Amino acid sequence: MQAELISIGDELLIGQTINTNAAWLGMELSLMGISVSKSVTIQDDESAIKKAIDTAFSNSEIVIITGGLGPTKDDITKYVLCDYFQTELVINEEVLKRVEEFFTKRGRKMLDVNIQQAALPKTCEILDNLQGTASGMWFDYEGKVLISLPGVPYEMKGIMWQFGFDKIKNHFKVKSIYHQTILLQGIGESFLADRMKDWENSIRSSGLGLAYLPAVSILKLRITSRNGIKDKAKIDAYFKELKEELPQYCFGEEKETLSGVLGRILRDKKLTIGTVESCTGGALATSLVSISGASNYFLGSFLTYANDLKIKLVGVSPSVISSHGVVSKEVVEEMALLGAEKLGVDICLSTSGVAGPDGGTEEKPVGTVWVGMAIKGNVSSFKFQFGDNRQRNIELTVNSTLNLLRCKLLEISIEKK
Amino acid sequence: MQAELISIGDELLIGQTINTNAAWLGMELSLMGISVSKSVTIQDDESAIKKAIDTAFSNSEIVIITGGLGPTKDDITKYVLCDYFQTELVINEEVLKRVEEFFTKRGRKMLDVNIQQAALPKTCEILDNLQGTASGMWFDYEGKVLISLPGVPYEMKGIMWQFGFDKIKNHFKVKSIYHQTILLQGIGESFLADRMKDWENSIRSSGLGLAYLPAVSILKLRITSRNGIKDKAKIDAYFKELKEELPQYCFGEEKETLSGVLGRILRDKKLTIGTVESCTGGALATSLVSISGASNYFLGSFLTYANDLKIKLVGVSPSVISSHGVVSKEVVEEMALLGAEKLGVDICLSTSGVAGPDGGTEEKPVGTVWVGMAIKGNVSSFKFQFGDNRQRNIELTVNSTLNLLRCKLLEISIEKK
Repeated sequence: MQAELISIGDELLIGQTINTNAAWLGMELSLMGISVSKSVTIQDDESAIKKAIDTAFSNSEIVIITGGLGPTKDDITKYVLCDYFQTELVINEEVLKRVEEFFTKRGRKMLDVNIQQAALPKTCEILDNLQGTASGMWFDYEGKVLISLPGVPYEMKGIMWQFGFDKIKNHFKVKSIYHQTILLQGIGESFLADRMKDWENSIRSSGLGLAYLPAVSILKLRITSRNGIKDKAKIDAYFKELKEELPQYCFGEEKETLSGVLGRILRDKKLTIGTVESCTGGALATSLVSISGASNYFLGSFLTYANDLKIKLVGVSPSVISSHGVVSKEVVEEMALLGAEKLGVDICLSTSGVAGPDGGTEEKPVGTVWVGMAIKGNVSSFKFQFGDNRQRNIELTVNSTLNLLRCKLLEISIEKK
Repeated sequence: MQAELISIGDELLIGQTINTNAAWLGMELSLMGISVSKSVTIQDDESAIKKAIDTAFSNSEIVIITGGLGPTKDDITKYVLCDYFQTELVINEEVLKRVEEFFTKRGRKMLDVNIQQAALPKTCEILDNLQGTASGMWFDYEGKVLISLPGVPYEMKGIMWQFGFDKIKNHFKVKSIYHQTILLQGIGESFLADRMKDWENSIRSSGLGLAYLPAVSILKLRITSRNGIKDKAKIDAYFKELKEELPQYCFGEEKETLSGVLGRILRDKKLTIGTVESCTGGALATSLVSISGASNYFLGSFLTYANDLKIKLVGVSPSVISSHGVVSKEVVEEMALLGAEKLGVDICLSTSGVAGPDGGTEEKPVGTVWVGMAIKGNVSSFKFQFGDNRQRNIELTVNSTLNLLRCKLLEISIEKK
């Protein structure tokens, strides 16, 4: 069972709007077991639309079009569909009533162009839009199906949730695809592929699919089965093997985040946390706080960007700074230990580094970051050498630090790379 | 001059990754005056890739492919291109050296699969990737051009900025479209359109193009001329008019940011700044620090997420909290005034609010945010009522606060909306 997506709109092609509709439909359809083989974005242009429909029907049983259903002149999808399916527009009385109600309810005057929103192709089935005035349309065509939806994400999603997906499920008897995702931090795609060669070959030869999805220092590994959920035990076993082999990298599964996983550990162990940040400028705290309910364990932070605030607020000794430099093991360890005391937290993370793009020296080039970690009075520290992109260095520091703390708290040894 | 984009990757089709590459390329190309007529996303599949290239070449002079250049087995773009252009892979010594340096610099071991990153099609021109190990490739083909780029946005953008766009400009002698952008904060699209009706009509009737590009509380207005830079004076005059009419909203131009503009003002006036944050959890500081050279004026912050840290670290009086509540004018004003003293800064910004999704009350619903502002001992405060999306509320607070401070420092009166 294959689907193809057609998104219509200049605003998508010139990058004014990012096409989140295609991603959302792709996600929902693949979770239903329908594979999206292609997604195409075109202009509001009659011949481009017809050509795209032809191509889509030649490959796929389901074609979903989004966009071009608004009331303005450049919205032509409905007219093109009438022509394509050799039908005509007729005012649908039920839809007209709903459009009228839509305006009455909002105290707005209905214009002629809005009445035209109720003119719909005679041969299609209407998928009601309870969020707006552009109806969804369902066309049966030589055993295949074309669904046309408005481009406004909120309206498109509403129509599909309320009517579209169920109708697809009933119309086609779909065999579901099953996915599981495991999340790793701090290991690159090629290192993992090299290290786990046999594991990977075994997965592929057992008929499962394996995909690597890399982000900044985070790697998602997705295993896919076309046999549905009955392969769950098999996939679980593969994940278990990976976690046992590389516990220092595997931090979570599915939609988890590092700060979410860490938050759960902190809650379980009834530990509080705070930060003393320099080069990360609050990004560590922001990440910890992004979790709803973070106030249960996150208490607060010092951002000591200026050196003398490290001294004045946190109590780092000036002599340690002058003898070792502010980007040093000694300084981050003092920051973490003294910060824990001042903030009254069980755990304090500290950072000091050269985020870049300026400020590097021969000895401490851009990308040098020291991280300190005080846990109930025991302090340790770690040195990282990242690249020269400031934003990226900050993100790498945050991810690496949160994962290091996870390992520490779970007593996982941190293997040297 | 037409371009077509081909994005390769299952992760895009199943919606695990949103295709921001296509939007970015679409934006940059149309700013250059190259129209993107189509964008297609397909699987890592040989016949799908070849078919997409055929179709693209039949419509467009420029074909840009992103994705499928990683070191793993499912990355096949390079091999398919070799086949398509009837050439073979050869190790490029220069690229190999760069890949080796990439690993050495990061203290990581280079693997066989990484060496393969230097094996590139014999007939293509290399577009160096200074951010990673997958090179860009440029193929000349019957007067047309195909460019293949890695899918990692950071690497893809780097290659295009550093080499790709210039090469396109030179190769096709592109007649450039001229753009100027003005940035506003705190005013909506329809409010502006209503308020500046005559101004807008005058722009359009003088043959210039006008586009509204809205983001979270930021509005970009872009004026476009097909006559190139000679319309600059005309556009400058329109911008001047807007700035004089609405100085409280117009904060910058082109690629400026609120924190960048504010940073320049702080440097000019030799003022230092710090923050005491509660509901924003460090986001204000993160925004200020995101500017390179921020250490010249940003000294530090207290993140007092827990109420007793507001008391213990900053010195807010417990009685003020208990009588007015922690989300109140009185509390943010104390936070700002006392914070300025403790941090030793000229200016201190403070926040306390209900970011959501939980924690609202009848009197202080989710989205209520108080902001305090101490400037050389003078304190003022502002109340905002935002919506119920946590991330959005934090972003709105940051943007609104930075713009308020900009107005204060430039002595621009803040007109009531």
